Amino acid sequence: MKFYKYPEIAEWDTLCERPTTDGLQLEKLVRTIFGEVRRNGDEALKRYSLSFDKVVIEDFRIEETTIKAAGQSLSSELKNAIQRAKENIEVFHKSQEVSTQRIETSKGIQCWQESRAIERVGIYIPGGTAPLFSTVLMLGIPAMIAGCKEIVLVSPPNKEGNIDPAILYTADLIGIKNIYRIGGIQAIAALSLPNTSIPKVDKIFGPGNQYVTAAKKEAQNLGLAIDMPAGPSEVLVIADPSCPVEFVAADLLAQAEHGPDSQVILLGTDEQYLLNCQEEVAKQLERLPRKNLASMALKNSKTICLASTDQCMEFSNQYAPEHLIIACENAEQWITKISNAGSVFIGKYSCESAGDYASGTNHTLPTNGFAKNYSGVTLGAFKKTISFQTVSAEGLIDLGPAIEVMAEAEQLFAHKNAVSVRLKSLADV
Amino acid sequence: MKFYKYPEIAEWDTLCERPTTDGLQLEKLVRTIFGEVRRNGDEALKRYSLSFDKVVIEDFRIEETTIKAAGQSLSSELKNAIQRAKENIEVFHKSQEVSTQRIETSKGIQCWQESRAIERVGIYIPGGTAPLFSTVLMLGIPAMIAGCKEIVLVSPPNKEGNIDPAILYTADLIGIKNIYRIGGIQAIAALSLPNTSIPKVDKIFGPGNQYVTAAKKEAQNLGLAIDMPAGPSEVLVIADPSCPVEFVAADLLAQAEHGPDSQVILLGTDEQYLLNCQEEVAKQLERLPRKNLASMALKNSKTICLASTDQCMEFSNQYAPEHLIIACENAEQWITKISNAGSVFIGKYSCESAGDYASGTNHTLPTNGFAKNYSGVTLGAFKKTISFQTVSAEGLIDLGPAIEVMAEAEQLFAHKNAVSVRLKSLADV
Repeated sequence: MKFYKYPEIAEWDTLCERPTTDGLQLEKLVRTIFGEVRRNGDEALKRYSLSFDKVVIEDFRIEETTIKAAGQSLSSELKNAIQRAKENIEVFHKSQEVSTQRIETSKGIQCWQESRAIERVGIYIPGGTAPLFSTVLMLGIPAMIAGCKEIVLVSPPNKEGNIDPAILYTADLIGIKNIYRIGGIQAIAALSLPNTSIPKVDKIFGPGNQYVTAAKKEAQNLGLAIDMPAGPSEVLVIADPSCPVEFVAADLLAQAEHGPDSQVILLGTDEQYLLNCQEEVAKQLERLPRKNLASMALKNSKTICLASTDQCMEFSNQYAPEHLIIACENAEQWITKISNAGSVFIGKYSCESAGDYASGTNHTLPTNGFAKNYSGVTLGAFKKTISFQTVSAEGLIDLGPAIEVMAEAEQLFAHKNAVSVRLKSLADV
Repeated sequence: MKFYKYPEIAEWDTLCERPTTDGLQLEKLVRTIFGEVRRNGDEALKRYSLSFDKVVIEDFRIEETTIKAAGQSLSSELKNAIQRAKENIEVFHKSQEVSTQRIETSKGIQCWQESRAIERVGIYIPGGTAPLFSTVLMLGIPAMIAGCKEIVLVSPPNKEGNIDPAILYTADLIGIKNIYRIGGIQAIAALSLPNTSIPKVDKIFGPGNQYVTAAKKEAQNLGLAIDMPAGPSEVLVIADPSCPVEFVAADLLAQAEHGPDSQVILLGTDEQYLLNCQEEVAKQLERLPRKNLASMALKNSKTICLASTDQCMEFSNQYAPEHLIIACENAEQWITKISNAGSVFIGKYSCESAGDYASGTNHTLPTNGFAKNYSGVTLGAFKKTISFQTVSAEGLIDLGPAIEVMAEAEQLFAHKNAVSVRLKSLADV
């Protein structure tokens, strides 16, 4: 980890920079694959699965019997843990229901909002070395609570053409039935286009590598909604000596183990303490199975000693971290100062792992500084809001003339007339 | 208007189709202009303003004295109407504040959400023949209520390099100070890139033609958020003989006058009544100043007679209209059947014009079928949601082991360790 002491505020922009990828090259590849899938449907999907995932696929859909059998290979300890996480995530996301409130904005005029589920949603679960069944919980549970009619889960197959049983078991536990063995750009293309055996959806959720991210952008260009743009995962920790260095080091390493491009930042005001944290990171690193990945991420990581905790908060807001851990004395006092972050962990026992798995908050969060303008996944992400109004005769008599004046000033006479014909009919009565 | 009687359900997809534009050609132009602005800043902006808007711009920013003087040229009648609209829009958007609720998801674990304003937002107000000051209200008011720190309004200049005084007056009334005379693709580029005299923002709101829409897509590709993708404005009216044909015809024409690509659909179950509505449309059309525009839109418009009001609701949900007017007897009974719409007007006196200007609801709404997966602009569109959690020692002792099991199953041992070091320190006490 690089160490910075009292950097000038002019340097903060550079310190907040994330790595960039070559979007244009990826865009070309994505458009080629989308074009092929548009023209050739499942045939193209099978071709890309063979070429990228090295597997021959007969049928993308996972059979119900396979889904139902998935739990047999899992320990009851894991199943119980998943069950506990599921309950907490359900409680928290159910609490996000907003109740409808009719407002009389003006005499005889009622306005209100109601939300409705997005009907068809796609959930992308990455494959690879680790089966991310926790993401199935994080996306499947709010989709079910929202009442989405069709929930389509896609995940890349392994060399045998299978999806990890932990993913299948978790999906089944939530009630997801439409599961397809497909990943990468071709999976996003399948969810975006109408002519494959995989249903087209209205919105796509889920993390993924740069290929999946580029494909989700293209889906968005085609009119689908996506949860948020994505980049490598990141954590920013603000710590003081009230938090043991072992805790801080463990949190930094938990982020670093995600991969070489993970972003890890430690802020504080006590130089010696920060150096001790770094030393402890080096110590714990030695014991990690993913030591290689983590140490690559640590090369780009930064420890920054600032003049005050207020400055730490300002830096954090400028960085806009996906995860923010405040491991300081009286951590709660800093909450109102936070303006940009995905998910915030308050106090020394609130480790990021809690939110990653089981405390109840969602772990699908804006990275790459997107916490400035995007929210993490909430129940609301699976819904849209519709506005409603009723205008009574009395309400129109009262407000109508103002509408007529405004419409005329915008030179929209038919807009004005829609009020005038009604006012006239009311005057004639 | 074309008339369809009892079309087969298989035909509905075709009946729901919107016109498409050549996105790829526009994308090229947009990328050229963004590239020029990135390289040459204000010089490029001035060049494009000269080439597209035929005006030489010295300084894009509108001087405060010009803004303050704008009201002098407006009638007090118009100012009073704007004031009434402002009050209603404020009341309704303030009612959308969501209060924070801490949830104990599990013993010793509290989770909650808080929203924070998006700090820098851009508002695009189209120019052209009509000054759309109503859109200044619709976007400026929620931005102010949300507490956005920097609100940047851009609008294309007229031939003299000015912005219509009604737009300036309305912006000043709301408290918007940063106003720039610039429109089109170059305006969106300026809001998206850091190197011009116009501030870069985090999210761009506002309607616009296909050029502006394509530019907003590119802004999104660069990491900015946008309110929603856009297409031509549209209305779907479901009517029965309880609503006078004059009202229905006026509502259809109010939509049609927006432009040749406006989408107008009338549904009902009473054939003779629908034909009478069409006849009334022809009659009212003759008296409209924008008769030519409206009659072009009407050529693509559809009147569809269906077998039941339930079928009308189903068709409407498949079409997902920006505006839905239910001008039927007991209109409220159909509310629960609505799953896809931008803004809904219930009952014969609830004309779309009310929501376009003054009732309080927002008029920035998803078109082009995007009501299936996007919401219209709400107070929440100017904010993002941050999740928070506190985990007590007791809470971690209780839930920690489940987190350890899940992290291990995902082969993320550093994630597990972040819990283990804490549990160990608690056991040591």
